[in-house]
Amino acid sequence: MRPYFAAALLFPAALHAQALRDQVRSWREAREPQIVREYSDFLAIPNVASDPASLRRNASTIVGMLQKRGVTARLLENGQYPPAVFGELRTPGATRTIVIYAHYDGQPVDPKEWRGGAPFSAQLRELRGTDWVDMPVPASGRLNPEARIFARGAGDDKAPIVALMYALDALKATGRTPAINIKFFFEGEEEAGSAHIVPILQNNRALLAADAWLFCDGPTHQSRQLQVAFGARGSMGLELTVYGPARALHSGHYGNWAPNPGMLLADLVRSLRDPDGKILIAGFYDDVLPPTAAELAAVRGLPPVDSALRAELLLGATEARSALLAERIMLPGLNLRGMRVGQVEGLAANAISTEAKASFDFRLVPKQTPDHIRSLVEAHLKANGWFVTHAAATDAERLAHTKVVRMTWGAGDEATRVSLDQPISQALTATLDEMLGKPVLRVPTLGGSLPTATIESTLGVPLVIFPIANHDDNQHAKDENLRLQNLWDGIEAYAAIMMRLEAHWPRITP
Amino acid sequence: MRPYFAAALLFPAALHAQALRDQVRSWREAREPQIVREYSDFLAIPNVASDPASLRRNASTIVGMLQKRGVTARLLENGQYPPAVFGELRTPGATRTIVIYAHYDGQPVDPKEWRGGAPFSAQLRELRGTDWVDMPVPASGRLNPEARIFARGAGDDKAPIVALMYALDALKATGRTPAINIKFFFEGEEEAGSAHIVPILQNNRALLAADAWLFCDGPTHQSRQLQVAFGARGSMGLELTVYGPARALHSGHYGNWAPNPGMLLADLVRSLRDPDGKILIAGFYDDVLPPTAAELAAVRGLPPVDSALRAELLLGATEARSALLAERIMLPGLNLRGMRVGQVEGLAANAISTEAKASFDFRLVPKQTPDHIRSLVEAHLKANGWFVTHAAATDAERLAHTKVVRMTWGAGDEATRVSLDQPISQALTATLDEMLGKPVLRVPTLGGSLPTATIESTLGVPLVIFPIANHDDNQHAKDENLRLQNLWDGIEAYAAIMMRLEAHWPRITP
Repeated sequence: MRPYFAAALLFPAALHAQALRDQVRSWREAREPQIVREYSDFLAIPNVASDPASLRRNASTIVGMLQKRGVTARLLENGQYPPAVFGELRTPGATRTIVIYAHYDGQPVDPKEWRGGAPFSAQLRELRGTDWVDMPVPASGRLNPEARIFARGAGDDKAPIVALMYALDALKATGRTPAINIKFFFEGEEEAGSAHIVPILQNNRALLAADAWLFCDGPTHQSRQLQVAFGARGSMGLELTVYGPARALHSGHYGNWAPNPGMLLADLVRSLRDPDGKILIAGFYDDVLPPTAAELAAVRGLPPVDSALRAELLLGATEARSALLAERIMLPGLNLRGMRVGQVEGLAANAISTEAKASFDFRLVPKQTPDHIRSLVEAHLKANGWFVTHAAATDAERLAHTKVVRMTWGAGDEATRVSLDQPISQALTATLDEMLGKPVLRVPTLGGSLPTATIESTLGVPLVIFPIANHDDNQHAKDENLRLQNLWDGIEAYAAIMMRLEAHWPRITP
Repeated sequence: MRPYFAAALLFPAALHAQALRDQVRSWREAREPQIVREYSDFLAIPNVASDPASLRRNASTIVGMLQKRGVTARLLENGQYPPAVFGELRTPGATRTIVIYAHYDGQPVDPKEWRGGAPFSAQLRELRGTDWVDMPVPASGRLNPEARIFARGAGDDKAPIVALMYALDALKATGRTPAINIKFFFEGEEEAGSAHIVPILQNNRALLAADAWLFCDGPTHQSRQLQVAFGARGSMGLELTVYGPARALHSGHYGNWAPNPGMLLADLVRSLRDPDGKILIAGFYDDVLPPTAAELAAVRGLPPVDSALRAELLLGATEARSALLAERIMLPGLNLRGMRVGQVEGLAANAISTEAKASFDFRLVPKQTPDHIRSLVEAHLKANGWFVTHAAATDAERLAHTKVVRMTWGAGDEATRVSLDQPISQALTATLDEMLGKPVLRVPTLGGSLPTATIESTLGVPLVIFPIANHDDNQHAKDENLRLQNLWDGIEAYAAIMMRLEAHWPRITP
């Protein structure tokens, strides 16, 4: 906890911040059904990569939403790719400029998997027992704050976009204007790996100039409290194919003579990580910095969630036993996304398969680079007797080597992590501490990955992460949802940031 | 090689056997297209378990085929299950009775996978380069013996049924009648695991009384020479499910904290077998008898096939390195049929899956029992920290244990292996040696599994295996086929057995 915090409570500024919060809250409490209906209209515009026309309709809708609030707004075009939305709100006399990032695109959907079968028809639901039950949106009155809006994009990541709009409305309705220069940058390709964001950033450097970026994506804390995250892990995908016999063989006539690619794959997978989660690739942890004292203190000050999560997830144990989730995600990780060989159960045949496949995602921490990790993994496999190829293995290669593996790497992103005592870190936490009347949660890093490294390295600007969606929002899955209280909290937090961040972020002139 | 063999060549009996073979061959050479057309008509009757009416049509067709050759024949009914076909040919003065087994049912088909899309429309094809090219069946003349008939059941296992019929025809045409009592038993449920064969055997003990069974299923040797096999490995299936978190988790936010069931499965699979094929389950090899001197001599006398197979299958290495295929299949085996967890490649998601599945088939050798293997495997997993359940794991079980696995065992069959110096072994090899003018190949066991143990244990009768289908007949797969030369060899061999087996099988009266 920062020393100014206890002091701040004694000063009028803190009282002012809480008055602001209460007024924003009253404003919202008077129009909850209206907000849900308007949000449902926005969610009705499909936002998947396979439907670029609808993506563009999202972008132009957001331009309209910004302009309606007096924000100068336009599209930042990027050839054939989805445009970003840019908005700007200049404040006379402000000395700080912040870019607020969110994304309007969502993960692919399979409507058959969704309850109701219509991922873009937003539906309000309440939990009754263990069942989410459809609810009509009333004409007026308060809503159950534990109710949720179900639709693709509801949590990830249209929620910050609408919360920002209502924060602007609430400020205006209570006679205020923001006290900082605000730029909005809403991306349309985050779920596709932000593959074409760099040209947008490079072509609009002057437009995007700012003191810091506020990255509004990801989940709030599992305790349902707001959190600020100072970084995100990097990520990198890896696909492996291990080769077996050229044609599938009868397991009786050729079993325990012809090598089984699934068995070889199990051996390979097991060689990468022990069952306790320790990565066994030589040199993998060499670049990993130990957590700072401030990071450790922050992590250990978080509300305990591990026991409740273990119970909810039916986990008899976690990796590295006593280590906390928040500590574990400060380390790099290696996750097995899938394995595919032969068939199981009713489809299983008594056969030796021709190949076996595995898919991994690495999670990287600061100082680890995708290039270096790639070379360590390949060296590990070679040291374990594997012949490594990056294309389909040729007949000659298969005949010449005992064990042959094809490796296909994803592009890879580095991690980002800003210090907890950077000016933007201090300003944001002070603003939220003041608004909440208690310290906002501080997590050194999210476990997940965001295009933060791309933005940081392209623009050279510090970046902090402030998520508002519930952690259990089924992001990327069927029945994605947003808990109403998370939306309400987001509106109040954005209003506080717009009004108070500048005051906590003095520009030190030399 | 048996001592009588060299001697046999000097005696008139051997010359008689070769004269018989030559006459059978001449008879067949005069009507190859007719045989292929008639076989195609038989193959046109679908023989999959999902079509019981067609299975029954196969059975009644075979009854007709037998009756046409003067064999007393009828169906052995078995309630709702496919009937067996029984036939009997008594020979006045004969002292030995043999039951000849084959099966008329085939593996399931997916017509889309088959070239031509019609697995029951038999098609003659010749290899041109690397391609099998459709051939019309000419009205008369000789056929390319390397041509093949493609259809479900062509190799496995209608081939012995038709070869037996043409052997009878050839004998009759050359003025002979069989010199042994022959019973025919053609099963209709072999590919469904012979699940209901026991009542048929038990209800027809007197009818099936014999000195030995000749089991006509499986492949000839990879060198394309005829072989006699004195046993088959037993088999047993195992399905495993390893549990992960109750719901799929984001691999960034929960990776390296929540256990990944795929990683746990890889560890489990790796604990069962080393990459060289050695099974690591404590006690697994305890019951395994070492091969006898005669078995080892037989195996080492087989034509070398390992190098050619390795080249054909693109194998840079085999398990246990220098061990021969024929030696390896005398040992028990553990084959991974499949693994399924999450997704790979384009479908892979950055997630920790809720469960991971693996499927295995064990291959057992004499003295190993399914019950004992089950208890060894479960003890091995428990010793490795697994909680083992045989039903879906309950929430309480998942919460109480670090690692939880569900095990589902198949029924399991024991191995059979008769001694190479049993009277039936000696009689059959002597008959075939004499017919071929050189020793028939002797393999102590097939690597694959057949319902031999069920028959042996139910009827207490010795059983030897004499296959005629080519080893590369795609049995159980798409584009199953029979090489014509294998059919021709089968006709000659069955004629020899019918005429000469009794002579090599003296009944020693006390």
